[in-house]
Amino acid sequence: MGEIYMSRLAELRKGKDLTQRNLADLVGVDPSTIRNWERDRGGIETFVRVAKLCEVLECSPSDLFRVEDATND
Amino acid sequence: MGEIYMSRLAELRKGKDLTQRNLADLVGVDPSTIRNWERDRGGIETFVRVAKLCEVLECSPSDLFRVEDATND
Repeated sequence: MGEIYMSRLAELRKGKDLTQRNLADLVGVDPSTIRNWERDRGGIETFVRVAKLCEVLECSPSDLFRVEDATND
Repeated sequence: MGEIYMSRLAELRKGKDLTQRNLADLVGVDPSTIRNWERDRGGIETFVRVAKLCEVLECSPSDLFRVEDATND
């Protein structure tokens, strides 16, 4: 379609005065994952898909799942 | 942490009267991807990560990237 997607993650992260490590810790991923997401590797397609899902379903990403207590397992 | 994540995608999709194929077409993925996301395979961790990113960065998933016209390439 002649469109390319560019990550805005680094820009958003810096706007919050967070290092890659800070953000990684807050999200629960490895800092290398943050680096890859910021370099448009591997993550950008994920962001686009989730954005489309949320648009079509008129929901936020946190609506896509529920958290259950598994301590009884 | 004693917490498990369960997909709510099937519930949200049915709430919009969409088949798996309808949703797949709208999102631009294969119907098997929708099935996997609904079965908590492969996609749920993605949803959780994007939800955390959006929470920390106070943004929506569509803020995580920008779309550029690549027709000049």
